[in-house]
Amino acid sequence: MRNVDEMTITDAVLKRLSGASDERTAEISAALIRHLHAFVREIRPTIEEWEKGIEFLTNTGRMCSSTRQEFVLLSDTLGVSMLVDAINHGVAQGVTESTVLGPFYVEGPPERAQGENISGGLEGEPLIVTGSVRGPDSAPIGGAVVDVWHSDGDGYYDVQQLEHVGGLAMRARFLADGNGAFHFWTIKPAAYPIPHDGPVGAMLEKQGRHPWRPAHIHFMISAPGYQKLVTHVFAEGDKYLDSDVVFGVKDSLIREFVEMPPGPTPDGLVRNSSFFHLHYDFGLHAA
Amino acid sequence: MRNVDEMTITDAVLKRLSGASDERTAEISAALIRHLHAFVREIRPTIEEWEKGIEFLTNTGRMCSSTRQEFVLLSDTLGVSMLVDAINHGVAQGVTESTVLGPFYVEGPPERAQGENISGGLEGEPLIVTGSVRGPDSAPIGGAVVDVWHSDGDGYYDVQQLEHVGGLAMRARFLADGNGAFHFWTIKPAAYPIPHDGPVGAMLEKQGRHPWRPAHIHFMISAPGYQKLVTHVFAEGDKYLDSDVVFGVKDSLIREFVEMPPGPTPDGLVRNSSFFHLHYDFGLHAA
Repeated sequence: MRNVDEMTITDAVLKRLSGASDERTAEISAALIRHLHAFVREIRPTIEEWEKGIEFLTNTGRMCSSTRQEFVLLSDTLGVSMLVDAINHGVAQGVTESTVLGPFYVEGPPERAQGENISGGLEGEPLIVTGSVRGPDSAPIGGAVVDVWHSDGDGYYDVQQLEHVGGLAMRARFLADGNGAFHFWTIKPAAYPIPHDGPVGAMLEKQGRHPWRPAHIHFMISAPGYQKLVTHVFAEGDKYLDSDVVFGVKDSLIREFVEMPPGPTPDGLVRNSSFFHLHYDFGLHAA
Repeated sequence: MRNVDEMTITDAVLKRLSGASDERTAEISAALIRHLHAFVREIRPTIEEWEKGIEFLTNTGRMCSSTRQEFVLLSDTLGVSMLVDAINHGVAQGVTESTVLGPFYVEGPPERAQGENISGGLEGEPLIVTGSVRGPDSAPIGGAVVDVWHSDGDGYYDVQQLEHVGGLAMRARFLADGNGAFHFWTIKPAAYPIPHDGPVGAMLEKQGRHPWRPAHIHFMISAPGYQKLVTHVFAEGDKYLDSDVVFGVKDSLIREFVEMPPGPTPDGLVRNSSFFHLHYDFGLHAA
């Protein structure tokens, strides 16, 4: 294990895994070493480029906080998140397709009652969201836990403007009713650039890529006996549907945010000004 | 660019590089995407494993500080640093082999005069280091800048115990004299585990690997018209020479730290107690 050179180093490192604590650790470590070395051998970095790589990873880690996950952004923008998603979630009849979690989910969102307005008093175009949760057999899943989160009309999440918003907003947890249905009021989200004032933003700029995502609402839906669904519903007609910076768009997840005239609302009220309506019926995989 | 799946995602991401700012950015980005996706496709991570990966990288970045570089440790322990070293530094007659920089170099070390003691008053076994710097033609390189740094007899660098040491110690910059020679006094370094109280230490433990490096002194030597040399001199007989956790040992870099009886010293003094002597003649590549 002395005198390693460009050709012998990979085997030397792999040999050190003989005492790994478990099979999966050995498997992941060996694959990481082989692919990482193959990458380095292909690009043949100068010392300065290696130093830049170390600096990039360091800055990416140091950018992370309780409200910013720069490594998730890196995974998303390199297509890794959607690849992991594809590996873990097959497509099946009656089951909603999944997409990236993104960096803005907050554990344990505030629980709200059906029909409540979750906009936190922020200005925006009123939007009612209605939906249902069903199993692959179309049977409604009463009591399903429906977490939602989305940006405001300027494309910012609550956690990006906590001082302005004064707390969590545009995010909530609902329980589907006995028919598997749920509905709530909020404001219409907009397309937005992912946070691009950090290392990932600098990477995108060097790669000649824009940082935008089409407007969407995030959903995370779970119920006992079913697989957890992590997905978005995207706004039909958005100009970024074909160039989402994180590659998350699927045709089956696009819906019109329908502009409605003043008058009756889907939840039995009457509004004297126009509003938008989004509806989506979600299907969960059996566990 | 919608509806990506496990097979199409890689090409979708690669296509986004068409507007990259320069050829090298496009080349490195494309290789990164291809090898990273190949790694993910091979290991087929669960969502939980992906989350663990994100958490590992995040914690590695957040562990970094002005005195700790966890991503360099990661690069070192995965053999990447020695691979990059091998790619950049060929072996040539009369030229000293290079090895890893490691995480403990401090920019702009204190300049000291020939023969000074750089131990900073720390207790340890006295050691005189003598050496020379020459070109590939064996001509001495007067005025070469010789940076040295090493651990104490317990295996700790100054930056790992700043409160105890009270400042930088066991590190200095010397200028080679007109004959390309230099010498200084210090204390004998010991084998040590790399800092293993962080994510890299946890990784090594899961991989069933010890974190030790054989005792060594770091040298970084530069002079106008020559390539910068980054290397160590290792202590002959050290028990970790064949299992250095960062794969840095080369036979040509091993020398005996010779125990000398009380009496005359190589720099013309007389000691009334025993001491150690290390000598190494360094050869630089022409630029």
